[in-house]
Amino acid sequence: MVVVVAAAVAWEAGKPLVMEQVEVAPPQAMEVRIKVKYTSLCHTDVYFWECEGQTPLFPRIFGHEAAGIVESIGEGVTDLKPGDHVLPIFTGECKECRHCKSEESNMCDLLRINTDRGVMINDGKSRFSIKGKPINHFLGTSTFSEYTVVHVGCLAKINPAAPLDKVCVVSCGISTGLGATLNVAKPKKGSTVAVFGLGAVGLAACEGARIAGASRIIGVDLNPNRFEAAKKFGVTDFVNPKDHQKPVQEVIGEMTDGGVDRAVECTGNINAMISAFECVHDGWGVAVLVGVPHQDAIFKSKPINFLNERTLKGTFFGNYKPRTDIPNVVEMYMKKELELEKFLTHRVKFSEINKAFDLMLKGEGLRCLITMD
Amino acid sequence: MVVVVAAAVAWEAGKPLVMEQVEVAPPQAMEVRIKVKYTSLCHTDVYFWECEGQTPLFPRIFGHEAAGIVESIGEGVTDLKPGDHVLPIFTGECKECRHCKSEESNMCDLLRINTDRGVMINDGKSRFSIKGKPINHFLGTSTFSEYTVVHVGCLAKINPAAPLDKVCVVSCGISTGLGATLNVAKPKKGSTVAVFGLGAVGLAACEGARIAGASRIIGVDLNPNRFEAAKKFGVTDFVNPKDHQKPVQEVIGEMTDGGVDRAVECTGNINAMISAFECVHDGWGVAVLVGVPHQDAIFKSKPINFLNERTLKGTFFGNYKPRTDIPNVVEMYMKKELELEKFLTHRVKFSEINKAFDLMLKGEGLRCLITMD
Repeated sequence: MVVVVAAAVAWEAGKPLVMEQVEVAPPQAMEVRIKVKYTSLCHTDVYFWECEGQTPLFPRIFGHEAAGIVESIGEGVTDLKPGDHVLPIFTGECKECRHCKSEESNMCDLLRINTDRGVMINDGKSRFSIKGKPINHFLGTSTFSEYTVVHVGCLAKINPAAPLDKVCVVSCGISTGLGATLNVAKPKKGSTVAVFGLGAVGLAACEGARIAGASRIIGVDLNPNRFEAAKKFGVTDFVNPKDHQKPVQEVIGEMTDGGVDRAVECTGNINAMISAFECVHDGWGVAVLVGVPHQDAIFKSKPINFLNERTLKGTFFGNYKPRTDIPNVVEMYMKKELELEKFLTHRVKFSEINKAFDLMLKGEGLRCLITMD
Repeated sequence: MVVVVAAAVAWEAGKPLVMEQVEVAPPQAMEVRIKVKYTSLCHTDVYFWECEGQTPLFPRIFGHEAAGIVESIGEGVTDLKPGDHVLPIFTGECKECRHCKSEESNMCDLLRINTDRGVMINDGKSRFSIKGKPINHFLGTSTFSEYTVVHVGCLAKINPAAPLDKVCVVSCGISTGLGATLNVAKPKKGSTVAVFGLGAVGLAACEGARIAGASRIIGVDLNPNRFEAAKKFGVTDFVNPKDHQKPVQEVIGEMTDGGVDRAVECTGNINAMISAFECVHDGWGVAVLVGVPHQDAIFKSKPINFLNERTLKGTFFGNYKPRTDIPNVVEMYMKKELELEKFLTHRVKFSEINKAFDLMLKGEGLRCLITMD
């Protein structure tokens, strides 16, 4: 039942991935082995591949944004069967813990993201090896491999009619930004929304604001080249903090007669977080934090900014529960409410995966699709 | 139309009030003159009477928590007529501005609380005088007077069957705490709630949690004498931060397997604000700030505390709109859902109003009712 397949292995931090023949063990209890059809590169892959300050776990197979087909199932798996179309998700939904049972949380106690774990939770071992030597998993997904083993709680079963080369990007970044707006910020029709950071996640937040019917979407980014592309995602106004002497929250306050109705922060920069909070209108403004900052960063603001009836919330994966909610995001695409094509700016073959890294390091495009066949 | 009545005048900061014969002018456009039947003392009166750091506006007639009866109305007043029972409110609802038109805000642009204003907005003048010399208003209410003039937007018309000596306290502190829980924190039945500060506002927040059906209400206060009385308001557990070496958020986290579902901060102490936020559970916890801190205080917390799906909100007057919502709080009392008697620990005659100040300065009791007749 072991299969030997091509995988892109990161042997060392920051060094190009190497295509290797890797043994992939069969799925154990509550695990599923899937054939990866498409994967795409997300900043989180690059961040842990560069491994500056994080726990080094090499060799490792990265990749977590993907779409595939179930090949085989382990003991106890009842929700999925071979042939099902799935999106692997970097965080899970056990359906049993307090978080999964809460309507408000998606932070599963059992399967919550763990970037420091390179093994499966069932036996604390890897399913990947090269000539018997184990290779570390990444985020429980490791989709830079033709086959991978994933816990059933980290697989969203999706509509088999959905094109996998499009919905692949729903499995991480797009849902993160989209859900931050639709599930957490919840702008009303006609409202104003500011989005900090116009990368893929930020543009997905803009896409959420567009879908919600925002009348004005203010994109904030230090890179002026991003505005033109952002217009496709509904962005109506562009603010480059570099163009202003005063803090960007004051600039936005003046543009909007006191502040926006909603703000979504997708950069992870602590000053942008503070600006995003302080640029929402008193009385009803809601700011949502998405971007993950440096661990030593401290959020600071005057309490009166809260007392004047502003709300600050954080979100993780757009508050989507992987198994319950992600199939519905795919349906939003199928109904043409959500436009995914505009996020897919590049495409490379699996054997050229290092080109995807180069594009991201240069800041070119939004998502590079990697085709496994 | 000028009436000459008894009023308790603060001639100087921190000096006992002096009963004087004061001329009260008739109501101008959009103003109402009311006969005050009962008033009670709130910390905010004492705070501005002590006037340490605030703009001194003396002589001044303090008082803002009260119940009365309409005596006469000015031009343009259509909602009220002589004989109506009303609660004057320190903040208003014009029903025309963006805040009043928003479902989410009660921070009226026209009539929002202004502690630095000692006059009526219509003409920038006072309606109080002693031998022609003007006396400053306070919060647009100045209820330490047998008659006072209030903007119509700052008067809640209530059920005439409601006993004014009980519902008097609905006009400020009780609604502030109650609304913070019921309107903003919104605990579900069976949930856990922590309340920081067990004064009248904090106990009103506890009362809200009790009404909402919280299974556990954790009261946090530095004064151990407050726990016994707090039990009447539904408090089940008491935490005195002085009894612990570790931060109170850690103590509460251990008591509740990861944190409470909701927290309400009613002290205004910046460290309590931070603790209140950090003691709520990840995934779904909501902390609500009520207490007003020193203006130089800075709220600080690690962004991961937000990103793990916690929410921090501030509230003003429990998010109640004075005219629209306060009559319903009175109805909660009439239906015996809200218990007001337990807040009313002392009662003095108007001529003895300085006793109410003494009680508050000694920290005795919750609310001292001042009877005007």
